Amino acid sequence: MLLGDIVDTNSAWLGRELTSAGIDICHQTTVGDNLPRIRQTLEQALARADAVIVTGGLGPTPDDITREAIADVMGVGLVRNSEIERLIASIFRSRDRSMPESNMRQADVPAGARWIEQRLGTAPGLICPLADRVIYALPGVPHEMEEMFTRAVLPDLRERSGQTGVIVSRVIKTWGASESAVADMIAERVEQQGNPTIAFLAGGGEIKVRLTAKAPSREEAMALIADEERAVTELLKNYAFGTDGETLAYALGREVREKGIHLAVAESLTGGMVGSAIVDVPGASDWFLGSAVVYTNHAKTSLLGIDPGLLETHGAVSAECARAMAEGARRIFGADVALSCTGEAGPHPLEAEIGQVYFAVSTQSDTRSIGIRLPGDRERIRLYSTSTLLDFARRTIASD
Amino acid sequence: MLLGDIVDTNSAWLGRELTSAGIDICHQTTVGDNLPRIRQTLEQALARADAVIVTGGLGPTPDDITREAIADVMGVGLVRNSEIERLIASIFRSRDRSMPESNMRQADVPAGARWIEQRLGTAPGLICPLADRVIYALPGVPHEMEEMFTRAVLPDLRERSGQTGVIVSRVIKTWGASESAVADMIAERVEQQGNPTIAFLAGGGEIKVRLTAKAPSREEAMALIADEERAVTELLKNYAFGTDGETLAYALGREVREKGIHLAVAESLTGGMVGSAIVDVPGASDWFLGSAVVYTNHAKTSLLGIDPGLLETHGAVSAECARAMAEGARRIFGADVALSCTGEAGPHPLEAEIGQVYFAVSTQSDTRSIGIRLPGDRERIRLYSTSTLLDFARRTIASD
Repeated sequence: MLLGDIVDTNSAWLGRELTSAGIDICHQTTVGDNLPRIRQTLEQALARADAVIVTGGLGPTPDDITREAIADVMGVGLVRNSEIERLIASIFRSRDRSMPESNMRQADVPAGARWIEQRLGTAPGLICPLADRVIYALPGVPHEMEEMFTRAVLPDLRERSGQTGVIVSRVIKTWGASESAVADMIAERVEQQGNPTIAFLAGGGEIKVRLTAKAPSREEAMALIADEERAVTELLKNYAFGTDGETLAYALGREVREKGIHLAVAESLTGGMVGSAIVDVPGASDWFLGSAVVYTNHAKTSLLGIDPGLLETHGAVSAECARAMAEGARRIFGADVALSCTGEAGPHPLEAEIGQVYFAVSTQSDTRSIGIRLPGDRERIRLYSTSTLLDFARRTIASD
Repeated sequence: MLLGDIVDTNSAWLGRELTSAGIDICHQTTVGDNLPRIRQTLEQALARADAVIVTGGLGPTPDDITREAIADVMGVGLVRNSEIERLIASIFRSRDRSMPESNMRQADVPAGARWIEQRLGTAPGLICPLADRVIYALPGVPHEMEEMFTRAVLPDLRERSGQTGVIVSRVIKTWGASESAVADMIAERVEQQGNPTIAFLAGGGEIKVRLTAKAPSREEAMALIADEERAVTELLKNYAFGTDGETLAYALGREVREKGIHLAVAESLTGGMVGSAIVDVPGASDWFLGSAVVYTNHAKTSLLGIDPGLLETHGAVSAECARAMAEGARRIFGADVALSCTGEAGPHPLEAEIGQVYFAVSTQSDTRSIGIRLPGDRERIRLYSTSTLLDFARRTIASD
């Protein structure tokens, strides 16, 4: 994992589970298969936390040394457990596989530790008490780890912590304002924050505001979140487009659905990314007709019936072309509303300056267009073009 | 990140970069926005490593406290840098955005530290010397972090480490064979492996073989890799489609370019994902014409001129429809070759069983189609449909 071959998704999964169980996580550490380093990491973790969860290193191969490291930290030896031995043997029999002797290393348990039965893989988990602290060892394979955590670790943790509090968090997503602008809009809430707390997350051009509430029950936590969400969302005006898993395409879909209209797209530099983002919304088939990906001038004229003269006069990267594309898409798809974008993504400026993009939204009443200059590389320009168009369409349809 | 809202991809990216630069990573730690904890984490990291890279917490909002934490560890104060102030102001001017005062916090630099100019975001990076050790602070936004690391941190690290050994690795990517099938194909190489070493990586349906060579110089390491790559690729036959960053769309583009032909797409369930994957290939405008995203039956008939009778008889999710879509796309785009896919992605089976997808490739000589049943959820089915179509087209055109 330190080599970067694998992205650690276990930490995020455990983070979500522990947080929603009301257990604070103060640290996550990744360390290589190196006995002294694992030992030192465990000791440091035990010095600052009541419970430590270790994932991985429980396999049969020589580089799986989590069992040894924990036994060292506990100051005990490893005991081969015959019950686990039988279980492992039966797993291999049931899979008609001959069992390499090395697998029996997985039956070693630090003296004084309890083991967690393996139901998906061959490695059992471990619950290792140290005075008033505890180390949990789980397999690194995500679905094995998740099953074992939910079945055995979480209940044990809840019992030890004796706390029943719940943490609920909600993310409010915005588009079109910088992180600092969003921070200013809700400055009063941030200053007065207590429970829920307020934090900022950025990524992909979306600025997100995360509310996190603690309460004895899930219901009370949800109520705290709901009040704060109302206040924050009002301050963020229509920069806020959704919460948690809701995307810009989802927000657009909500407007389109409410209006009971049908939508089509014509796109150039995004190459289908806009249509694909829309189809990512389950149920999009109710209101989305399709997208004309017209990557060449010839395709723009032959598919959308754009006047070649217009392309000669203004070029394919122009507000005029964007407007003609949106109007063309409305016609050929028989749509109520159509969106379009055309621009220069690079790597070499062919039609215009790299990052220059024009967007248009054509409705029954009129066609509006905007042009902006986006920063970044080819991929980022196409990604931001997609989001900008979806947001432009969302606002236009909402105000229509 | 501890709450699990964000999966940490920066650590994996840094792991890959540092490893291939021959620099050992011994630890990765995630810690919350808590001054004492960040300080303690930095001190522990400095105790066991010569260099520490910190990402995130350099933003303008109050919870961005990395600057303060580093200054504390250095035992110095923060100095507002007027050059950075001017730079930040100009960034906001160029984007026609008014600048909230809070942004100027990003101009604070620990006394005695150097700063790294920000070229993508508004936060500068920091190079903070502590006796013979160093802390690098980079933004948390991946593309900002990556650009700054490559431009400023890696050169500085190399200079400090003075190390000359180089690790070079190359990933050979395959599509269409299971991990164990790929392992069997190259079993002899795996058994004989030494330098380079051979490892398997899976993800997104692609089975990848990573070769890693160590040598005193980059040239020698590259030579070792080149020999092994030749041997492995030959054993993998046409399952191997590219290396490292090369995608299935890139491999398809290579075939299309060699043949000097032009390509078009008609897609339904993928909603534009196929066109978008193709446009991801720089220079695609030389050979890619566009894609007709026809999400409804009406769009299939009106845009591609598919006989409504065909849709009535066979349904939209059928080999016949896929073939008609490909032939229609060839005609309306005036393309030499056109690809198509149509299928049922769910969440509710409307036209056919969820996961049933048909693919077609239409060339001057003939039109071929295949149908497969894909596992997984809506997103996975659309992703695998895209890859399957690109691979089907790559093989068809290569053998044409």
